[in-house]
Amino acid sequence: MSVRGQQAFVDRRPEVAHARSEEDPVSTPPASTAPALRFGVNYTPRRGWFHSWHDFDPAHAREDLAQIAGLGLDHVRVFHLWPLLQPNRTLVRTAAVDQLAHLVDLAGEAGLDVLVDGVQGHLSSFDFYPEWTRSWHHRNVFTDADAVEAQAELLRVLGRALAGRTNLIGLQLGNELNNLVEHNPVTVQEVNHYLDTLLAAAREGLRAAAPGRLVTHSAYDAAWYGDDHPFTPEASALKGDLTTVHPWVFSGDCARRYGARSPQVLHLAEYGVEIAKAYAEDTTRPVWVQETGAPEPHVPAADAPEFARATVLNAAGCAQLWGVTWWCSHDVDRSLADYPELEYTLGLFDSTGRAKPIATALADTIAELRAEPRPGQPRDVALVLDCSPATRSVSGPGGSYFEAWMRLRARGVRPAVVLASCAEDPEYLAARGITDVLRTG
Amino acid sequence: MSVRGQQAFVDRRPEVAHARSEEDPVSTPPASTAPALRFGVNYTPRRGWFHSWHDFDPAHAREDLAQIAGLGLDHVRVFHLWPLLQPNRTLVRTAAVDQLAHLVDLAGEAGLDVLVDGVQGHLSSFDFYPEWTRSWHHRNVFTDADAVEAQAELLRVLGRALAGRTNLIGLQLGNELNNLVEHNPVTVQEVNHYLDTLLAAAREGLRAAAPGRLVTHSAYDAAWYGDDHPFTPEASALKGDLTTVHPWVFSGDCARRYGARSPQVLHLAEYGVEIAKAYAEDTTRPVWVQETGAPEPHVPAADAPEFARATVLNAAGCAQLWGVTWWCSHDVDRSLADYPELEYTLGLFDSTGRAKPIATALADTIAELRAEPRPGQPRDVALVLDCSPATRSVSGPGGSYFEAWMRLRARGVRPAVVLASCAEDPEYLAARGITDVLRTG
Repeated sequence: MSVRGQQAFVDRRPEVAHARSEEDPVSTPPASTAPALRFGVNYTPRRGWFHSWHDFDPAHAREDLAQIAGLGLDHVRVFHLWPLLQPNRTLVRTAAVDQLAHLVDLAGEAGLDVLVDGVQGHLSSFDFYPEWTRSWHHRNVFTDADAVEAQAELLRVLGRALAGRTNLIGLQLGNELNNLVEHNPVTVQEVNHYLDTLLAAAREGLRAAAPGRLVTHSAYDAAWYGDDHPFTPEASALKGDLTTVHPWVFSGDCARRYGARSPQVLHLAEYGVEIAKAYAEDTTRPVWVQETGAPEPHVPAADAPEFARATVLNAAGCAQLWGVTWWCSHDVDRSLADYPELEYTLGLFDSTGRAKPIATALADTIAELRAEPRPGQPRDVALVLDCSPATRSVSGPGGSYFEAWMRLRARGVRPAVVLASCAEDPEYLAARGITDVLRTG
Repeated sequence: MSVRGQQAFVDRRPEVAHARSEEDPVSTPPASTAPALRFGVNYTPRRGWFHSWHDFDPAHAREDLAQIAGLGLDHVRVFHLWPLLQPNRTLVRTAAVDQLAHLVDLAGEAGLDVLVDGVQGHLSSFDFYPEWTRSWHHRNVFTDADAVEAQAELLRVLGRALAGRTNLIGLQLGNELNNLVEHNPVTVQEVNHYLDTLLAAAREGLRAAAPGRLVTHSAYDAAWYGDDHPFTPEASALKGDLTTVHPWVFSGDCARRYGARSPQVLHLAEYGVEIAKAYAEDTTRPVWVQETGAPEPHVPAADAPEFARATVLNAAGCAQLWGVTWWCSHDVDRSLADYPELEYTLGLFDSTGRAKPIATALADTIAELRAEPRPGQPRDVALVLDCSPATRSVSGPGGSYFEAWMRLRARGVRPAVVLASCAEDPEYLAARGITDVLRTG
């Protein structure tokens, strides 16, 4: 376990970090006392990708984790597979849960903290559904009461199994659950009920954990930028202990549209953090850049080191940033078929275990930030975002709001984002340290 | 390994058993020299059903197999799970193949021969598809060239791994592959290409095996009785080394329609064998009653022992019967959810491992048949089946042909089935020992 790491997320728990209290409505934002940023990587096992769970080999995991720790990273995010954890609706395999706990312990031995994602669900274009949700047994995983209860039970079991691990950052419901929407139609209200049910279950499972363990969920960018998408920005920004963002440069064709070295690409993660803060009610709520990466050809390999450096430095300039978790540790081996091309190139290490230039760039950038912390500062200028769930694409790459924000940013302004509904609320603006409100058009 | 068993299936290989040669067109059918019948069970692991492959425990398998052998059965049919064997299109897990080989060896230690089914595929209402065939990666498992080649490769790998096992009966493509038609639309021609490709792959894999190893495929009753179903009776009766039939009493609602103790139910397996023989070109081709069972409530538990006894004795009266393989060894434990009710009651042993009355009845019947073999005799009376692929339901439960055949049977006649296309071919009729041809209506 990383003591520094533990300190960091204990300090950021919502219940101890609410700056905007009734007693002190215009308190100074806590940027100057912000805990150290967390830097980590999404762990993709080098040998056999996540199929390695079938044949979990602690020695292989130990080797991968040592490489990761060797870059100076402080945490990993890990993923088991739903059909392996819960092959029958009423059977959670003890052996699979034990594997996961073992991996958490191996990470601890390497000095790494761990966020565990529970229900996968979706990973790198593949959807892992247990057979009891498919084909003749089709169940909508978001709305079928028994399917939701089964996922809740899985999270309770995982929480109980992991609660005692001192290097546990927390339990996330699953990776980008909204990737399952395409094959499981669902309404906003049903998503909210689903998330609330599963978050409660994860909390219940973790009841025995030390204070400060996070319970979170995650979504891919459609939640922020997809008109009428049933996972809403509010669900991301209000549910769970912090807001996670996965600002990918292929979202809205960002890198193709603006160029791999464009300000839009280099400030995309920073922008994602500011958008997330705008939708929060708690003005001190942390935001975690939980996935970002350099997928070829969107970001050519030659540009990847600078992309990584700029992405981390620009995101680190945001107050309330929890940390950055790179996607991913190891390239998918080309002996495995059918991945989108970009999945074969996203690793900090290649499939033979060799560190790529982007790994060095990321390690160096993190070392610099640790040697000379530059706490994120409040932003006194804000650009008003006026959209509805049906028009939220204005705030995504290609959208008018996105482009206006980026134009300001390229001119050296560091704009915050405020929703139109808050733009004339002096108390709210003060809590965020905003003194100037700009509008587009 | 069972020496008797080996002898049995070596003798039945098509290449040594063709009685209808050019030189001797009216030779006497070989019923009187028929090898001993084979009796076995479809092995459903008592603990964890097929999910036990995730945590394969040789001690558990050994215990189950000893119970099976204790009934006097000589073989088992075994099933691994496709997503566990081949989680990526280009990755066949060595560990999973080794498990399967290990199970074959454990069966051998118990004195049991083994048929291995390769691609599951479908088991007891659940469809097990690898993720590379579903969701965003949807591929039609019958028609996608890469998906077919992947299954062929899996069968080659299994064949190579199992070829050296002396107690191997053979390699079947998979359990009732036509259950996958509903979610993978396919034409007759495409099915035929699929089956030919996979049968060739299984043969190629088994190349190093001792002579006499079977390569087979299987289908549920829609192949025989489903109008316009793309798996045809001809595909069952012409492809592979023998014809398998799975005459289930719930097909066409047989037991509900006629009653659990009706002649239609008690002669259903026998009828299935005779139907299968009618579609064969090789008049000596063996037929294997590879699945039959006593599902509640179709067959009440009190009637199950007599159902088992009658089913076996009536089928044993058929010339060219290879054997009978009961479904199944062990009840599904009720701690596992979502199975159709009948799956919880199909075992010879209950989920605590206790032998049920049907187990004793089956064991006693088999012992009698072994003590006093009653070789199946040729049938001199045949009832002409005149149907097309689009009208084959006349031959299934509820159909006019089925009912006419059963009326004759109830009167003590033992009718063969001949297709209308063969009904006036004296050479063919002589080869089958048919002297009287009857027609319905």
